Amino acid sequence: MTQAPSLPLTGLKIVELGHYIAAPFATRLLADLGAEVIKVEPPGGDPVRGWGSSVDGNAVWFSVHGRNKLSVTLDLKKPEDRARLVALLKRADALIENFRAGYLERIGLGPDVLHAENPRLVIGRISGYGQDGPYRDKPAFGAIGEAMGGLRHLTANPGQTEYPPPRCGVSISDDLAGMYCAMAVIAACWQVKGDPTAKGRVVDVDLVSSVFSLMEGMLPEYGLFGWVRQPQGAAIKTAAPTNTYPCADGKWLCVAGNSDLIFKRLMAAIGQPAMAADPRFATNAGRCENVAELDAAIADWTRTQPAAEAEAILEAAEVPCSRLFDMADCANDPHFRDRGWVMEVADPLLGQVLHPAAPFRFDGVSPQAMVRWPGVGAGAHNDKVFAALERGETTPLSA
Amino acid sequence: MTQAPSLPLTGLKIVELGHYIAAPFATRLLADLGAEVIKVEPPGGDPVRGWGSSVDGNAVWFSVHGRNKLSVTLDLKKPEDRARLVALLKRADALIENFRAGYLERIGLGPDVLHAENPRLVIGRISGYGQDGPYRDKPAFGAIGEAMGGLRHLTANPGQTEYPPPRCGVSISDDLAGMYCAMAVIAACWQVKGDPTAKGRVVDVDLVSSVFSLMEGMLPEYGLFGWVRQPQGAAIKTAAPTNTYPCADGKWLCVAGNSDLIFKRLMAAIGQPAMAADPRFATNAGRCENVAELDAAIADWTRTQPAAEAEAILEAAEVPCSRLFDMADCANDPHFRDRGWVMEVADPLLGQVLHPAAPFRFDGVSPQAMVRWPGVGAGAHNDKVFAALERGETTPLSA
Repeated sequence: MTQAPSLPLTGLKIVELGHYIAAPFATRLLADLGAEVIKVEPPGGDPVRGWGSSVDGNAVWFSVHGRNKLSVTLDLKKPEDRARLVALLKRADALIENFRAGYLERIGLGPDVLHAENPRLVIGRISGYGQDGPYRDKPAFGAIGEAMGGLRHLTANPGQTEYPPPRCGVSISDDLAGMYCAMAVIAACWQVKGDPTAKGRVVDVDLVSSVFSLMEGMLPEYGLFGWVRQPQGAAIKTAAPTNTYPCADGKWLCVAGNSDLIFKRLMAAIGQPAMAADPRFATNAGRCENVAELDAAIADWTRTQPAAEAEAILEAAEVPCSRLFDMADCANDPHFRDRGWVMEVADPLLGQVLHPAAPFRFDGVSPQAMVRWPGVGAGAHNDKVFAALERGETTPLSA
Repeated sequence: MTQAPSLPLTGLKIVELGHYIAAPFATRLLADLGAEVIKVEPPGGDPVRGWGSSVDGNAVWFSVHGRNKLSVTLDLKKPEDRARLVALLKRADALIENFRAGYLERIGLGPDVLHAENPRLVIGRISGYGQDGPYRDKPAFGAIGEAMGGLRHLTANPGQTEYPPPRCGVSISDDLAGMYCAMAVIAACWQVKGDPTAKGRVVDVDLVSSVFSLMEGMLPEYGLFGWVRQPQGAAIKTAAPTNTYPCADGKWLCVAGNSDLIFKRLMAAIGQPAMAADPRFATNAGRCENVAELDAAIADWTRTQPAAEAEAILEAAEVPCSRLFDMADCANDPHFRDRGWVMEVADPLLGQVLHPAAPFRFDGVSPQAMVRWPGVGAGAHNDKVFAALERGETTPLSA
């Protein structure tokens, strides 16, 4: 019944035909989970390698974005390289791609062709709007996915007109689509595994409906009552007090004081015992009605304290709160270090770098063991992979 | 080689011990994928059933949040109900829970106990800060996960002090943790399937590092150079022009005009042919240097048009753009309807309601077929499930 702790997807073989964020993020998660991922790049490499800062031409982000993957370069305009891709796909369990919808078909490598070669291949496809429908051929940008999916409308302060509603700060639509594609591809591989008659599925994931999937009860509420959810800033309309408050050092403190007991501790901690005892504020409903008065009292107090000190005072009073962590806060936090969420990795291209942990942990496997190697240069594994292909080897490869 | 199109996780059996968002969202995704999900609720039901609007006491959101799941009620304080839970887990492939870290152990149902009963059970656990580390026992709120994970710091307009950085508008840290847990649990089930010696894994997912996982290259850049990424509002510092612009009707238009060719089309469309031809703006680097001038010119034009008309003009010029869709825009958009992202579902508790599609599609299965039934009342399947348990049946159940 016992076995050595291993990563769960050890033995699963994935080919990535990805660029930029969505498909490469999907395969990075699968690689963190233990799958063999062979990233197929054009001869010049994935253009994401040109993004952000670099050391000697090696992109810093790619150390994380490409970790645990093998990289080969192929020129899909050349028949012999397309044949090599097909050979790679014949030994694979799944393909993940994020070309524009229909591109694979145009280069003669649509799902029908690939399934004729490997009927059990799972094909995960990520596009802006999906593989069909009236907007299929529109160019896809992450920002458009956020706007159309309903998120950007909500990420705003009501009544604020001087500044636009901000991005949430990261490429969230690409990330979500990558996560859904990874999830759905593993599910399809689960279906195929152990069933000799099973056929590989085609999985269709898009940016817009990945964002739209997070809209909670807003769609049925619109359908039943015609309600259109409006932005609520940093507050939540149905719970009070929960908001983000300005501190003396220009930083912000997020406070979740919206349970009856926590509320009393919060008001005592900020020197407002009378408000803690006021029957108008005894229930969440009453606090929601009088939220402006509560927010003003809390902000009056936070403005007198630097964020870290206000946080320490409220923590001592057992009030859930957090200053808004920036990357220095994350990198130096004792819990982040203790849990291995921030770890040191030796990167031959960059030197000693910090990597974030995989966002899931498995019993018996340390976060460090889930980073088997950092991202490599484009084509670093051409010799190794193509030699294994020529020998007809099908066992999973590693760096 | 052929088989009737089916959902990929058909046959997989999941028990949910969840409340609020994270674990129930994880199991909703698994249920959309075809798994049997039995949601175990306390006698009063998951408190999320009290959130938001309702019809005759039935929460509107729960029609979506609980769809494709069976519901049973158990009082885990009673030994006979704990025994029923164990019987459910003996026939299951996986458990997903989001109690506070350590709660399962305190009620005598920790992983060791459960694995003694069912060694192959995969146990997915979602908590605020993880199952160990110095912050393990702090209370977890979604807002705190967003703040500590680094997202709230970025979701802001630089220099804006009058309003706090907004929430991104949805419970993003719970959603991300739920998605990662679903993904990791399927991976662990893949490992167990077909291997008679395999043991079920314990999967540890937390809110904070789920958010932190989206921080792109920011952690290695901080480690190498000491750089701390600051909020960039609706713009992206390294690409121009891409921003969100105010329109005549008070709405906003998101525009991604940051490639050389799209930029020229954009400037021509807004009546600025001289700027389209200006060599200062010929490259992205030049445009980034002069982004204030470009943003001002674009905003001067968008202010003269309602958002929908500005969008139509730029679309005709093949410039990627989108007004910020609210729920009415999503619900009535032809592509959303054509793709089945918005669909009509007959709900016995609510009447005709709108449901969002599952965020992944599989060949041969329509989005409609992935919604097998809407969310049911707490304990609606007590009789059915407990009778099957007593008969020792292990085949998957449906509503």
